[in-house]
Amino acid sequence: MVSEDFKSMLQGKSVIRQLSEYATARGNEIGYENVFDYSLGNPSVPVPQEFTDAMVRLLTEEDPVKLHGYSQSQGIPSVRGAHAEYLNKRFGMNYTAEHLFMTTGAAGAIAHAARAVTKPGDEVITFAPFFPEYIQYINRTGAELKIVPADTDTFQLDFDALEEAFSEKTSAVLINTPNNPSGAMYTEETLKTLADMMRRMQDKYDHEIFLISDEPYREIVFDGKIAPYPAHFYDNTLTCYSYSKSLSIPGERIGYVAVNPAAKDADIISVMCGQISRGLGHNCPPSIIQLAVSEVLGITADLSVYEENMNILYDELVSLGFTVTRPGGTFYIMPKALEDDSVAFCNKAKEYDLILVPADSFGAPGFFRMAYCTDTDKVRRSLPALEKFVRECYPKY
Amino acid sequence: MVSEDFKSMLQGKSVIRQLSEYATARGNEIGYENVFDYSLGNPSVPVPQEFTDAMVRLLTEEDPVKLHGYSQSQGIPSVRGAHAEYLNKRFGMNYTAEHLFMTTGAAGAIAHAARAVTKPGDEVITFAPFFPEYIQYINRTGAELKIVPADTDTFQLDFDALEEAFSEKTSAVLINTPNNPSGAMYTEETLKTLADMMRRMQDKYDHEIFLISDEPYREIVFDGKIAPYPAHFYDNTLTCYSYSKSLSIPGERIGYVAVNPAAKDADIISVMCGQISRGLGHNCPPSIIQLAVSEVLGITADLSVYEENMNILYDELVSLGFTVTRPGGTFYIMPKALEDDSVAFCNKAKEYDLILVPADSFGAPGFFRMAYCTDTDKVRRSLPALEKFVRECYPKY
Repeated sequence: MVSEDFKSMLQGKSVIRQLSEYATARGNEIGYENVFDYSLGNPSVPVPQEFTDAMVRLLTEEDPVKLHGYSQSQGIPSVRGAHAEYLNKRFGMNYTAEHLFMTTGAAGAIAHAARAVTKPGDEVITFAPFFPEYIQYINRTGAELKIVPADTDTFQLDFDALEEAFSEKTSAVLINTPNNPSGAMYTEETLKTLADMMRRMQDKYDHEIFLISDEPYREIVFDGKIAPYPAHFYDNTLTCYSYSKSLSIPGERIGYVAVNPAAKDADIISVMCGQISRGLGHNCPPSIIQLAVSEVLGITADLSVYEENMNILYDELVSLGFTVTRPGGTFYIMPKALEDDSVAFCNKAKEYDLILVPADSFGAPGFFRMAYCTDTDKVRRSLPALEKFVRECYPKY
Repeated sequence: MVSEDFKSMLQGKSVIRQLSEYATARGNEIGYENVFDYSLGNPSVPVPQEFTDAMVRLLTEEDPVKLHGYSQSQGIPSVRGAHAEYLNKRFGMNYTAEHLFMTTGAAGAIAHAARAVTKPGDEVITFAPFFPEYIQYINRTGAELKIVPADTDTFQLDFDALEEAFSEKTSAVLINTPNNPSGAMYTEETLKTLADMMRRMQDKYDHEIFLISDEPYREIVFDGKIAPYPAHFYDNTLTCYSYSKSLSIPGERIGYVAVNPAAKDADIISVMCGQISRGLGHNCPPSIIQLAVSEVLGITADLSVYEENMNILYDELVSLGFTVTRPGGTFYIMPKALEDDSVAFCNKAKEYDLILVPADSFGAPGFFRMAYCTDTDKVRRSLPALEKFVRECYPKY
């Protein structure tokens, strides 16, 4: 029989998806270049040429049987080794190939990491605002996602609320820094305080509590800064990475889990992920993509457009009177709406062909998200529409 | 905490894996060319040039942002449309793009198909001999795999045993034709009888029972025959396909689920699979691989070596006195061992550098599997070893 559980999921279309479809339809009417579509978080810059060159070289020079063969479910050993070496150099860690598990992007990474360190009935804590797919990612493992309300002043973490959220059932904490949707990058101080509290809770409940650190925006960081590496601060850390944003290849599904060598059972977690993969329909990430990314470690697409767009939008939003935290990274910004009902706010914006996403589904009602992974010219051209929208709909601002 | 469930899976290494590792280790001693390694089912022929050309063209000519972008979770619409058209022409079906769901190989296809048509607690019936990963594929959905004993005379289906296996809880039947490990191809008569019984059981239990048809070996068929297409015989069929064997690209993880348009809820099952994917860490199969396979529909690698190897081995096994069913396809053959204990039999064979896999874990104790996806020269060179093994260990044969 067709599953009623999954059938019931067809009812609800995500707000982002609805808005994106509206933007496409509106684009068909007036030209998509005239729709200021800030709905979807899709990278807008091309893959670096080095990746393309690596792919072509693999295709034309390597033995095809070996090139396109199954990899180990943990990933190709040489690829894992190259990742360990790169991460050690970059972050001063001491990974070996055995601590790496290659995945189909961050979604694949979290699917495996969450199953490795939880059991059905456990609780996994995350922080608002959060990527709404986390609900599916965690709850479908049989564990339950518990959401700590946002610190809407800074979009760092509300530690009082966090302390209340811990329970005997907590087996993991899931963070995302730099953060989708707020754009906030967690500071060293935030990560230290988090680690201290998690160690205290491990002692209190007498079991490991793992930090699952989702870092697809690690390379999109502004003002010349470098994102603090969460695994530095906490031993029981599983770092989840995706090349979707840094290399602009979201469709090619490649990323990894890196198990902190200081973690409990660090030597077996990657092997366990291989076992977990058997039930998820995941044999290995695409072999040629594994090999290609391992040839361009440390190289990224030209990500500077995101910072340029952020600066333009941030300045404009501030000058229009919005309350907004300046993003530390990503290609998102999350201002406070100009009325309490952010859904109504975003609906009004549509009349000006501004596609903004109410942040209710991200756990931050009253805010809205703009995904500025688009060309800078369009961002500039959107400013008059934004001004007109605010002036006409919210004249008191 | 680290999951005890998945940790416990680390104890048992699969027999195939153990034997394959033994073969590699032995190869390091005496040269791998001298180890007659029939353990692993890894394609041994190169990908067709057309696939490589398509990949290189995509990489060098297409807009990289579009090329490497996320596809819909159901797959790229043009790719799904091309598949529907191809399958309609080839098998006289009437699929549209809406009936296709692109997957990461057959493992991904079964992961989604099984969840779409079962709920936890349901039963899924399959037939021995079977691919041992089916246990993980099905039981990890929350449903339970029930195994109908093999018809060891023909390796078609034992319908009396099947009838007994049905219950109120049966929501799907999982078949694999041409079959790993037996090499048998189910005849039209077998598929018709199966369909008749399944329709009868649908009436008896008053709910749909889906046929999940796993067909990665569809293109490796011998004697100029064409594999009967199971969906022809039964409306509620989900066809699961992988390009791993037909294009020799198992590492690139690409396949599909095709929902028979005559199936119950045929219009929503692919969309449901998109919902299911959210919990499995699967966003979409790799975009470039989707596009490349859709450019080479109907093309296969040169698969003739498998038939040549089969003929050599089959004739030799028969002449040595083995009881063996002649394979209709695949790159497997499954003779009866020369003693009841096939594990002991295969252990003795190792002394002759013959790596054979006892079929106990495939649900056919007393038999053994040979995967002859290797070069023909090596198959020929293995015959004296096989003869010597039989003569010395089983002189009565």
